[in-house]
This record gives sequence, C-alpha cells and structure tokens, in this order.
Amino acid sequence: MDQNFVETTALPDTGVAFLTLNRPEQRNPLSSEAMRDVTAALRKLGDEDTTRVVVIRAAGPVFSAGHDLKEMIGRTLEDEQAIFDTCVEMMQAVQDIPQPVIASVQGAAVAAGCQLAASCDLVVASANAVFGTPGVKIGLFCSTPMVALSRAIGRKRALQMLLTGDTIDAETAADWGLVNVVVAAEKLADETNALARKIAKASPLTVKIGKQAFYRQIELPQGEAYAAMAETMAANAVTCDAQEGMQAFVEKRKPQWQGK
Amino acid sequence: MDQNFVETTALPDTGVAFLTLNRPEQRNPLSSEAMRDVTAALRKLGDEDTTRVVVIRAAGPVFSAGHDLKEMIGRTLEDEQAIFDTCVEMMQAVQDIPQPVIASVQGAAVAAGCQLAASCDLVVASANAVFGTPGVKIGLFCSTPMVALSRAIGRKRALQMLLTGDTIDAETAADWGLVNVVVAAEKLADETNALARKIAKASPLTVKIGKQAFYRQIELPQGEAYAAMAETMAANAVTCDAQEGMQAFVEKRKPQWQGK
Amino acid sequence: MDQNFVETTALPDTGVAFLTLNRPEQRNPLSSEAMRDVTAALRKLGDEDTTRVVVIRAAGPVFSAGHDLKEMIGRTLEDEQAIFDTCVEMMQAVQDIPQPVIASVQGAAVAAGCQLAASCDLVVASANAVFGTPGVKIGLFCSTPMVALSRAIGRKRALQMLLTGDTIDAETAADWGLVNVVVAAEKLADETNALARKIAKASPLTVKIGKQAFYRQIELPQGEAYAAMAETMAANAVTCDAQEGMQAFVEKRKPQWQGK
Repeated sequence: MDQNFVETTALPDTGVAFLTLNRPEQRNPLSSEAMRDVTAALRKLGDEDTTRVVVIRAAGPVFSAGHDLKEMIGRTLEDEQAIFDTCVEMMQAVQDIPQPVIASVQGAAVAAGCQLAASCDLVVASANAVFGTPGVKIGLFCSTPMVALSRAIGRKRALQMLLTGDTIDAETAADWGLVNVVVAAEKLADETNALARKIAKASPLTVKIGKQAFYRQIELPQGEAYAAMAETMAANAVTCDAQEGMQAFVEKRKPQWQGK
Repeated sequence: MDQNFVETTALPDTGVAFLTLNRPEQRNPLSSEAMRDVTAALRKLGDEDTTRVVVIRAAGPVFSAGHDLKEMIGRTLEDEQAIFDTCVEMMQAVQDIPQPVIASVQGAAVAAGCQLAASCDLVVASANAVFGTPGVKIGLFCSTPMVALSRAIGRKRALQMLLTGDTIDAETAADWGLVNVVVAAEKLADETNALARKIAKASPLTVKIGKQAFYRQIELPQGEAYAAMAETMAANAVTCDAQEGMQAFVEKRKPQWQGK
Repeated sequence: MDQNFVETTALPDTGVAFLTLNRPEQRNPLSSEAMRDVTAALRKLGDEDTTRVVVIRAAGPVFSAGHDLKEMIGRTLEDEQAIFDTCVEMMQAVQDIPQPVIASVQGAAVAAGCQLAASCDLVVASANAVFGTPGVKIGLFCSTPMVALSRAIGRKRALQMLLTGDTIDAETAADWGLVNVVVAAEKLADETNALARKIAKASPLTVKIGKQAFYRQIELPQGEAYAAMAETMAANAVTCDAQEGMQAFVEKRKPQWQGK
C-alpha cells in the first residue's frame, strides 16, 4: 500500500489543519511507522505559522485500536522499548506543539488510541464513541496509556478501566472529564470544526503562550506555579496582541492580531 | 469616591466575617489597589481570634469582572509583573489565613474573579452565577487564573474554558467541582451564612490545624503526605479541644472549645 | 471476646479472598489491634500466589466507624503518633500488595473507615452507604483521611466534607469519583464478587505489574512517568503472559496464563 498512514489537510483560510489516521480497514493501528508519521506530521504543523489549531481524526468507523500487536509478538526487550519510546514521543508531541490539538473521536479509541485522545488538549466525541484500556485482558497492562488517562479522569476511575479492561461510552467519558463535548455521530465533523474555528480566531501568539504555560504549571507545586505564571502573564501582557486586545475591548471593536 | 474598595463586616456573635467587594458599578474590578485592600483585610481577619469563618462576597449583580484592564494598557513589563504579583499575593492570602474562606458568588466571576472564587476553600453560587477565563479573547491568556482553576476542575475542562474563553453556568461549575453548592439567587445570602455558621461552630484551633494541613498535604507525594499528616493528627489529638471533643462524644454531650 | 478482629476467607477456586472487619456490635472500630491485624492479613494475602483479588468488607450494618476513640483519650503524644503510624501503615499496605483490593461498603464508612475505602483500588458501595470525615466535629480534624480522600475527589469536595463533617451518600460518592459502582443493598455481595472474579481472570503477573506501576506513575511529573512506564510496559511485553495473551488474541482463542 502506497497510501500514507497519516494524511494532513487543511480547512482553507481558517488556520485549522487535520491530521487523519488513514488505515480504516486495519482500525487505524498505531504501528511504529504510523506513530513516527504522526509525530513528524505534528511537528511540521507545529512549525507552520498558518496553522492555528490541529484536529486529529480518523478515517473509517474506528478512531484507533491502539498498537499493532503483530509488531510486538516475539520481539526483544530492546525492540519493545523502542516501540513504547516511539509512542511516548508521539503523545508528548501533541502537547509540545504550540497549537491546540483537538481529538475528534468516533467508534473505539482503545489502548494507545485512548491515550492519544487523552493526550489531546480537547476531545470532541461522537455519541457512538467508546474509550478503553483493555491491555489487561491480553496480559499487557496499559501502563503508558494510564499516564494520560489517570491525569484526565483521576485514580479510581482510571483503575476501574485499567483493571477491568471494560470500555466506557462517550457520555461516561464526558462525565469523567476525558471528553469535552459529545455530539450526534452525523455532527462530529461540523461540531469539531466549529470548535476548532472558534479557537483559531484567537491570537496565535497568546494561545501558544497559554498552552505552553498550562502544561508547565500543572506539574508544579502551587507556589512555584504562581511564580512562573505571574511572570508568564506579565510577559504576555506587554505583547502587541495583548495590548491590541485590551485596547480593542475598551474601544468595543474587534482586535487585529499581529503576533506569531 | 471615598468609599472603600472592600468592606469588612461581621455577623454578630457568630464568628462569621464578611469581606465585600464594593465597586458594583464597575463590576468589582480587581485593580491593584482593590487587591491590596483584599489582602490586607484578609490578613487582619486572619489575626482575629473572634473570626472563625470568612465569607468573600460582592455588592451588586456581578461577583467580579477580574483585573482592571485600564491599568494594564501601555505599561512596562515591571508594572505588569507588579500587578500579577499583587494578584498572586491575594490568592495565596485566601489559603494562608487560618480560617476557612467561602466565596459567595452571584452573576459573573470571570478572569481574576473566577480565580478568586476558585482559590476559596468553598464556593456557594447563585443559580445565576457564571464562571469563565475569557482572557484568550483579548490576547491575554488567563495564566495565573489557571493555576487555581486547573487544580479545581482538572485538565480537559480547564483547557476548554481557557482556550474558548466561554463561561460555564453554576450547575456545570458544581458538576466539575469548582462550586460546592448551587442555590436560588434569593437564597444566596442565607445559604452562605448557614454554611459559614455551621463551620464556625467547630473548634477554631482544630479548623486552623486542618486547613493548614490540607494545603500542605495536597502538594506532597502520598508517602510524604502521610508522614506529615500522621504527625499533624497526633499533635491535634493531644490538644485540649480534641481531648474535650472526644470526651464529649463518648459522654454524648456538646463539647466546649477552649483552643485558639 | 476470642473472635478475631479480622477474618480471612476465600471464594474457592476463584482467586478471590475476603478480609472481613468483624466487630459489628462496635461498628468495626479501627483500633490499633484491628489495624495491625488488617495489615498482617493483607501482607499474608499479598504473599499468596493463589490470591488474585482481595475484597475488604465488613460484618454488620456498618462498614467502619473509624478509630477507636477510647484509645485516644488521655494519651501521650507518642501514643497518638503510634496510632496514626499504625493507621498509615495499614492504608499503604492496601496499595502495596500486588493484588487489586476492592472495598465492599454498606452503611457508614467514616473517618478512618472512609479512608480505608478511599485507599482501596476500587470501591463497590451499597445504595445505603454513606461516607464522611466528621473529625472536625469532635475537635480532631481528619488529617490522615484527607490524604486518601483529597486524592480521590479533589480539593473543593474534600474540603467540604472535611470542614462540615457532613456525610455524602453513595450516589454522590460515585459522582465525585470516590466510589466505582453503586448497587442495591441486597446485591452488594454478588456485585462485588462478580467484579472481583472478572479481575481475577486476568494474568496475576500482569495485574501485579500494572497495580505497582499505577501508584508509581501517579506521583511523578508526566515526563518522568512516561519514561518509567515505557520501560515498565516494554518489560511487561516480553513476559510469557503478554506474549501468550497477544498470540491468543491474534488466534482468537482464550489465553493460558503462566506468570506469577
């Protein structure tokens, strides 16, 4: 198959780019090659000034069934380590690029597929989506997925998913804080795009400062987080876009963003 | 205007003190002067043995619209840093004083106003209250507010509020853990006071030990938190009020608190 | 009374062991002796290859009313410290043993009883269960319970329980993430056993790796957690059970676990 694992497209003139997992017949497995492609595509988008929001979506009925098991049978420890390092690199790239990343999820998002959704800044889910970490059922506990999962939904709920391997539906995922919005299946694309376009209207410089600051402060003790954020917010306040935005607000007009 | 930014009053003989944001016509902006006044008022109340619970409330239809934007236009980096340092000092004072602090919120609590509510130990909200971090819309990401917000409601929901700038209503805020109780608008004062008075009946010494211990342990790895709390609880157990409280419980009578 | 504080029994041929608090007339107090017995019983079960899941349950209408107050009146600081050290040791043993621990809760689980439930990996609650940290009412703030409680339900809700001393019902506890499943009172034993048996069917080696990894990663900054979990998951992947599980999945047959 010559087709790429991952396709990158854009919604013209909106600043919204799509990264589409594109092996629907195989349930979009996150093979090492696919994960390297996603990482490379994310980094490329991250460097583009014209891209303001990235949507990760999937072709076909399933978001992603996770790792490619065939790749992990009969391999050495070094080979396995390389696979999970590649996986972690992809998950961190989602949070490292300056633009917000929205997962648009239909069908199953399980194992590393669940982790990929959990790693995105925001998640829009079709009412038919399900999320799960079923590794325990095949003897391979979802230990890397639980890093993202437990930070999104907390201890007891994460342990329930991890120890039973059961999936949860989209409404439960929203109730637990894994999903931001649940929409009817036929509206998934439209609602995802509407959210992406709304965020894409903000100053890209401001959003970049904010996303980077978010992941920095969330790991710190509160006192250190405040010291870092007071500095970040002061630096943000003197940028052209904050000055323009505040001035426009006072003058009751639309702001014109200049920052990148 | 000679009127103070902040008024401090008390409910006689209850141990409940009110700190009222008092610029209703300007939507209770948290200017540097207002924030310094709140901090000073909090510290003064914190030193009073007769004050057992503090309620932060606001005059007029709005809790607080956040920082005073006019103060942040055309300023130097040093000036901006001073504003956010003043803000952080106020937020930390809420948690540093020995008494529990309850926010009583009607109307909009946005940006630093949302942060002030999120920084309180407990929040009672009118059904008409809304919470938001709209800074992204004016080019100034709510980076200091997100320290309190993300610690109250978790990652995905905080990012949704921060990246869209949209407000959430009181019920959603309660569902997400930002608000403890939602009450009808006309009952906000009564319900807030009832909660404050209930807490004010506890031993002030015990509550002081507990509040301080709470914010200490929440930042620690679990093992260190347990070591610290075993020590704290042992020291609490030998105080006059714990001994009196346990004895009264065994004897099925009301305890008489002595500690301060 | 010669009867043990704690009884250990097993569901034959299932891998499910029960640890039963067995002082129903006294509301299952966690005296120092009872806590040492629970810890010893947990460690013994932890060393058994045949035990795959542990259920902590209680005889009588109440799960546990917490510490034995009579033990804490008129004691020295050293005595009190010894009690809380014993308590912490028990709570940590719940998470330290390799097998998942499920709390099966009916009636009141308060103070250290609430903490014991919160410390379990999973909690099944009867619809009649209530949870609370009422220490503040008797002058002894629930400072060690709040370590487990605040990590399960977050800041504002934990502070509400701690500062008011009010109990929450089972549905609220589930809504807040303290309880995984609420069931009708008459189904508590059956539903707990069904959950335990489901988990007991997984590879004990895999579950052991996963539980240990969960509590390790949850305390780490995300980057360190990912580095640790990539290593853990690679090591898991080369075990006999993961290889067997993946192979069985590909061949669409039931796996045969060998690992311990």
